[in-house]
Amino acid sequence: MRAVDLIYKKRTGLELIPAELEYLVFGYLRDEIPDYQLAAFLMAVCWRGMTRAETFALTDAMLRSGRRLDLSAFGVVADKHSTGGVGDKVSLVVVPLVAALGVPVAKMSGRGLGHTGGTLDKLEAFPGLRVELSEGEFLDQLGRVGAVIAGQSPELAPADAKIYALRDATATVDSIPLIVASIMSKKLAAGAQVIVLDVKVGRGAFMRRRAQAERLARLLVEVGRTAGRRVEAVLTDMNQPLGRAVGNALEVKEAVSTLRGEGPEDLVAVCTELAGRMLWLAGRYPDLEAARRSVRSVLAEGSALGKLAEMVAAQGGDPALVWEPERLPPAPVRRTVVARQPGYVTRLDARAVGEAAVRLGAGRAKKGDPIDHRVGFVFYRKRGDWVSPGEPLFEVHARTEAEADLAAKAVLEAIGLGGRRPPARPVVLGTVTAANLEPG
Amino acid sequence: MRAVDLIYKKRTGLELIPAELEYLVFGYLRDEIPDYQLAAFLMAVCWRGMTRAETFALTDAMLRSGRRLDLSAFGVVADKHSTGGVGDKVSLVVVPLVAALGVPVAKMSGRGLGHTGGTLDKLEAFPGLRVELSEGEFLDQLGRVGAVIAGQSPELAPADAKIYALRDATATVDSIPLIVASIMSKKLAAGAQVIVLDVKVGRGAFMRRRAQAERLARLLVEVGRTAGRRVEAVLTDMNQPLGRAVGNALEVKEAVSTLRGEGPEDLVAVCTELAGRMLWLAGRYPDLEAARRSVRSVLAEGSALGKLAEMVAAQGGDPALVWEPERLPPAPVRRTVVARQPGYVTRLDARAVGEAAVRLGAGRAKKGDPIDHRVGFVFYRKRGDWVSPGEPLFEVHARTEAEADLAAKAVLEAIGLGGRRPPARPVVLGTVTAANLEPG
Repeated sequence: MRAVDLIYKKRTGLELIPAELEYLVFGYLRDEIPDYQLAAFLMAVCWRGMTRAETFALTDAMLRSGRRLDLSAFGVVADKHSTGGVGDKVSLVVVPLVAALGVPVAKMSGRGLGHTGGTLDKLEAFPGLRVELSEGEFLDQLGRVGAVIAGQSPELAPADAKIYALRDATATVDSIPLIVASIMSKKLAAGAQVIVLDVKVGRGAFMRRRAQAERLARLLVEVGRTAGRRVEAVLTDMNQPLGRAVGNALEVKEAVSTLRGEGPEDLVAVCTELAGRMLWLAGRYPDLEAARRSVRSVLAEGSALGKLAEMVAAQGGDPALVWEPERLPPAPVRRTVVARQPGYVTRLDARAVGEAAVRLGAGRAKKGDPIDHRVGFVFYRKRGDWVSPGEPLFEVHARTEAEADLAAKAVLEAIGLGGRRPPARPVVLGTVTAANLEPG
Repeated sequence: MRAVDLIYKKRTGLELIPAELEYLVFGYLRDEIPDYQLAAFLMAVCWRGMTRAETFALTDAMLRSGRRLDLSAFGVVADKHSTGGVGDKVSLVVVPLVAALGVPVAKMSGRGLGHTGGTLDKLEAFPGLRVELSEGEFLDQLGRVGAVIAGQSPELAPADAKIYALRDATATVDSIPLIVASIMSKKLAAGAQVIVLDVKVGRGAFMRRRAQAERLARLLVEVGRTAGRRVEAVLTDMNQPLGRAVGNALEVKEAVSTLRGEGPEDLVAVCTELAGRMLWLAGRYPDLEAARRSVRSVLAEGSALGKLAEMVAAQGGDPALVWEPERLPPAPVRRTVVARQPGYVTRLDARAVGEAAVRLGAGRAKKGDPIDHRVGFVFYRKRGDWVSPGEPLFEVHARTEAEADLAAKAVLEAIGLGGRRPPARPVVLGTVTAANLEPG
């Protein structure tokens, strides 16, 4: 087998057999296939796509490139994954929530990149909290606390890490089969039996269009189901930021409020849907609605906040901050921006907000950039809300006045005001389950 | 400017501006852009193609990546290029022919690769002949002899050499804009004012279909004309080998016969067309037909053979072999294969013949493989010819009996016999000139 022939085969639109995909994945991981050949192959995949069989085989080869966590000692364990958005603090809510209801959650997360945030960065807003856990620490915490969120282990699906770095440098990130193989190889290696996927759709998401997001969700679920896991996907809106807070410590505070039963409506809706499905798929409830009811009552009672505090403590953070999040280090500059004219908010562009947050220091323009956990935005008005002149639109939390100026200007441009209230739009747009998997 | 953004731009089908293409070409040549990024870009070009403006700009950047030969001291100099085929010894005939008629020819050639032969390999069938000439030697011979064929100088269009090696390893050779930029950057750097291109079409050619070959020819001519050169292209048939001989020394013998006025009809037709156009574009004749007449009379008189002998002598070969080519080293095994059944030859598959020649040792499966100048085939019958049982179809020249067996079997399979004479097919299929350049 020669890599150049496999590139040519994909280039001409032919289907590769599993042994050929394995040859490429394993050869690349072992440095036997040079990066330029894999780069050309990846672009050919962006061009020609992959069949379902190819996507399954690619995922499987990437899964088999490393170790797999054995979680069988913990009963049915749940995991969740988001395709990434702005203001997405769902994991900080859902992981302790599901654990509090008796289903252990073992989650490996990523860092923010580009305009989207990352759960690890948000967690690190707790001073001293460690996200790089050894496998022993990860499993130990899962057993003791029932909830753990850590960085991706380099021993799981190592081919994905190497291929992802190449995709990032070669403009080949944007390909549904490659995204599916990347996500699912890691999720399958991480060992959870239940996996719920939050596929974001809209301006601030990787998938801008509904149809595209649905294709992705469907394929993610199929690959997971084919591998024998209980997998569902939820499509959620990402045209505007989720919740009111964007920025690491600000999002932690909002997650805490949500666990106290004081969360914003859209965030609560997404958390309820995801946590409900995780619990239901774990087999704890007779039906999905019963699971959702449990979630709502735990949120109303605030009884999952203690689980977040346990998680934070187990990972070296100060659990007192969970109870008093107002003590998290504040940004030096805090400014409220008011409306100059009246109107309904017709648009609050998630992507523009995410990019402004990166410029404030909340995120990374490129991998390895340092971030500032204190900075970001809090929105007083979101799509559909009325604002009168002089009323607050949003707060900027910044390091300097100059940065606050720039951010305020950028976000004002990201907000559209109009005389007519825009039609309501649900945040949970749809689901992909085993039942509705086929036909499309 | 970042390479990843330019890859993305091409990936999404947008047009790159000249400065962006220059950034990629120069950055790659200076090792500032890694090969995996260029590989992804090249595959994106295969996918999305290039506009004419992009192709011009890419060619120009590759041209400017190195030195250019200044041939102004030699008056109007001609060059020719073939896109590669089987039995293509046209350069060995045309270069001395045109020089004998007073127009200097300065040609840089390549080696054979895959099923196609290369002019340098054919020339090296003359023991001791050197094709790696310094620039000084090249220009000196052009002045003294008026005819020179040498290897590509690494100082001309060096970006092409580096990019071509990458294309070869990444299955991105097959792209019309990339082919055009590769050919024309080298031809423009080599300095000739007149360039005639032989674009082969058919089973044994890079371009299998006429429409594709026409697109290539048109773009080659446009790029050359835009750069201020006098350029035409001739489309010629490459469904069956050109002439009767395939294999390096065997082709030299056939070239010599042709220069003596004893060449096979198809080879003579192609040589006449190419040489005629080179002379006409050089401004030596009132019209093309007059140039062709001169070519025919020089061939009939055998008066250009001396020019070939001068060339061979100037490059260190023995000129006596031009007068007595039967003294070129013969292959150890020579076998005549006869027809078992009667029929018209309906098919003589150039590609299969080329591949059989490679297996005999006449060509290279991969770059750097050694070759044997002695081996190959001579065809007694070609498409449209009648053969009776027991009459010779072809000769195999091989190193061993076993290799001769395999080659004979392969070529027998490459020959189709039928009861009806196939319709005649001209070898010169069409031309692309300034006059017929637009509309298509």
